[in-house]
Amino acid sequence: MSGSSTYADWIAVDWGTTHLRVWAIGADGSIRAEASSAKGMGGLTRDGFEPALLDLVEDWLGGGKTPVLACGMVGAKQGWDEAPYIPIPAKPAELVPMRATAPRDPRLSFSIVPGLKQANPTDVMRGEETQIAGFLALEPGFDGILCLPGTHTKWVHLSAGEVVSFQTCMTGEMFDLLSHQSVLRHSVAGEVLDGETFSEAVSDTLSRPERLAQRLFAIRADATLNGTGSAVARARLSGALIGAELASTRPYWLGQQVVVAGAPALADLYARALAGQGVAVRVLDAAPLTLAGLARIRAAQKEPTHT
Amino acid sequence: MSGSSTYADWIAVDWGTTHLRVWAIGADGSIRAEASSAKGMGGLTRDGFEPALLDLVEDWLGGGKTPVLACGMVGAKQGWDEAPYIPIPAKPAELVPMRATAPRDPRLSFSIVPGLKQANPTDVMRGEETQIAGFLALEPGFDGILCLPGTHTKWVHLSAGEVVSFQTCMTGEMFDLLSHQSVLRHSVAGEVLDGETFSEAVSDTLSRPERLAQRLFAIRADATLNGTGSAVARARLSGALIGAELASTRPYWLGQQVVVAGAPALADLYARALAGQGVAVRVLDAAPLTLAGLARIRAAQKEPTHT
Repeated sequence: MSGSSTYADWIAVDWGTTHLRVWAIGADGSIRAEASSAKGMGGLTRDGFEPALLDLVEDWLGGGKTPVLACGMVGAKQGWDEAPYIPIPAKPAELVPMRATAPRDPRLSFSIVPGLKQANPTDVMRGEETQIAGFLALEPGFDGILCLPGTHTKWVHLSAGEVVSFQTCMTGEMFDLLSHQSVLRHSVAGEVLDGETFSEAVSDTLSRPERLAQRLFAIRADATLNGTGSAVARARLSGALIGAELASTRPYWLGQQVVVAGAPALADLYARALAGQGVAVRVLDAAPLTLAGLARIRAAQKEPTHT
Repeated sequence: MSGSSTYADWIAVDWGTTHLRVWAIGADGSIRAEASSAKGMGGLTRDGFEPALLDLVEDWLGGGKTPVLACGMVGAKQGWDEAPYIPIPAKPAELVPMRATAPRDPRLSFSIVPGLKQANPTDVMRGEETQIAGFLALEPGFDGILCLPGTHTKWVHLSAGEVVSFQTCMTGEMFDLLSHQSVLRHSVAGEVLDGETFSEAVSDTLSRPERLAQRLFAIRADATLNGTGSAVARARLSGALIGAELASTRPYWLGQQVVVAGAPALADLYARALAGQGVAVRVLDAAPLTLAGLARIRAAQKEPTHT
């Protein structure tokens, strides 16, 4: 974080379950400072949000009111204020942020980008709608599938700037639980993952998705009986789970143009899985998308900067 | 535990990852005392096994050497001593217990029933072989499928007293992780489970196993958007996972005679799932099987009781 002279024209906030990230944006749109903390929504009570934010941004506040635009779980029922989900089809760039309960500090105004909901199949997103707005700011004419891999991977069908449909798979969360806390944890320890084994596991699971339950314990049994190394075991677990995800999301990628935007290592894994199925896929680093989306959504509102 | 006059002819031990259970058996085969503790294999170092055992059985020891026969993870690599897996086909009642490293206490001799291994598909069991021996002691002529639901459910094809093949599914462990630690935990809290929803979820997953990944997050989305109650949400999670297990074990139950032996509530759930697929299933309480199996295996060895 920089010193007290860094006044922000507005402040962008990415506030998820486990993290809080903030940017001071200048009048010219440049990033003048940034900061982050582990004070995510999951660890805060309602009274804790404003102090957690001020901890990071106090030095950026000037004499007037500084608008703050946030996205993510901060808008959930357990967040600062609930920003109700908007039904799809919806244009992420044109989402209207909800003005939250007035902060105690008179120098702040606080708005939250609403999440999106889908009636059938039932699904929700919160935070990704802003990443999508950021992606569409970079590629306004995109028509196809955007895949946002993470704890809860989102597959999003985009057309004419709209979210047409989406599907969430909790593959990342399952991988974390199984690799750290299940009987498989001893077999898959480490960070290395054998690429060829991964591709095979994806293909095997895609062609026989009904065998998933058997594949998982077999990873442990193979390590026990045959001394399978952790890079192979880890690839089999990851491949089985991502393969099951691809089996479930087939309409989203079969014959489609797919962009995978995520943390580089994870996005590469999804790209490898899709490439193995003959899908032409482009990979993008998702890191800049949230800020780009917040800027895009703010610009659409044409809100005066100091009210 | 009873007083110091309860000498055991031999001592039966069920020693799993998280529990230790012991029985003092009289010369007539009757249970003269029993005890248990939470000192499972998972929490013990190699030096900790004998003291953990003595804590429970010391009062049962007489002047001579008392044989102790144990099954379960106590025989794993991280256990008291490793009892190598025996390849199938194998007759559980005729497994030869391995004499473990001599205990420091001269009043004890300690033997461990070996587990079973299958080469292809790779699979292992440790502890269940003894439950199977107990089941076959009750039903010596059984030919069909024994399902032992639990943390790691075993499906076992039995014929002529032999384990012909088996398959492990870690459904119980996945349910525990997802229901206690994932984003689904808020939606599925509680113990009640809606039976009809469960049966539907099993059937849906069995008929479209490739959709599993989608079904899971939908439980959370439905709770968030539609206020689905926890009994329904819990039934959907349990039904999806048991449905995926049935999809993976179809050759084990389709057109087969199936006995489900487990803790009553869980065994009933598996029976309901199988009955929904038109399988004739019998349910058995698994509680007495381990001790019955240890007694059967010991009898086959015709070991003198006080050496």
